[in-house]
Amino acid sequence: MTDAPKNLLRPLPASLPEERVDVLTPPGAVRVERIVSTGHASPPGFWYDQREAEWVAVLQGAGRIAYDDGSEEELRAGDHTFIPAGRRHRVAWTTPDGPTVWLAVFYEG
Amino acid sequence: MTDAPKNLLRPLPASLPEERVDVLTPPGAVRVERIVSTGHASPPGFWYDQREAEWVAVLQGAGRIAYDDGSEEELRAGDHTFIPAGRRHRVAWTTPDGPTVWLAVFYEG
Repeated sequence: MTDAPKNLLRPLPASLPEERVDVLTPPGAVRVERIVSTGHASPPGFWYDQREAEWVAVLQGAGRIAYDDGSEEELRAGDHTFIPAGRRHRVAWTTPDGPTVWLAVFYEG
Repeated sequence: MTDAPKNLLRPLPASLPEERVDVLTPPGAVRVERIVSTGHASPPGFWYDQREAEWVAVLQGAGRIAYDDGSEEELRAGDHTFIPAGRRHRVAWTTPDGPTVWLAVFYEG
């Protein structure tokens, strides 16, 4: 957290070898993360299966979350969604046109 | 939450009689709120004195948080800060030049 970015939106890297995750909160019951993707997606067949609930927004760029029931949800700047604990999901796509900034709040709900 | 805005940034009201608060998460251990200010500040002499910790960011616009030790912190789009439970604070100022969008995460930490 000491090295957390002071600003969520600048500066942003134009491209990254892999997603960059910064934790923005002190250790505790809740973890706020900024995640920067530059065209990244979850590996094929990979699913997040979390014990924690997740509230997530896209602050810049665009991304698509796929769920294991076959549905997908596209988030553009300002869009947000809630993923209950145990709902399997993956990042199906993020825009290749510049960085996508996710803001995610994880907690045991 | 049913009436929560689908998008954090649009549409935004140009002016509001008072701050508008929308809760974005289902009832639980954590409350994510979007707060829209259009030049509002806390009433003189009023202090938030919360049992909950608060992580807060400004997504658009600008605002200034004052603490009861006399310090102030200005947040512009993308800036964020953490306010421990019990740290008395107030909103000293938000820009009169259009809406300021705060994103706040409250939890017992």
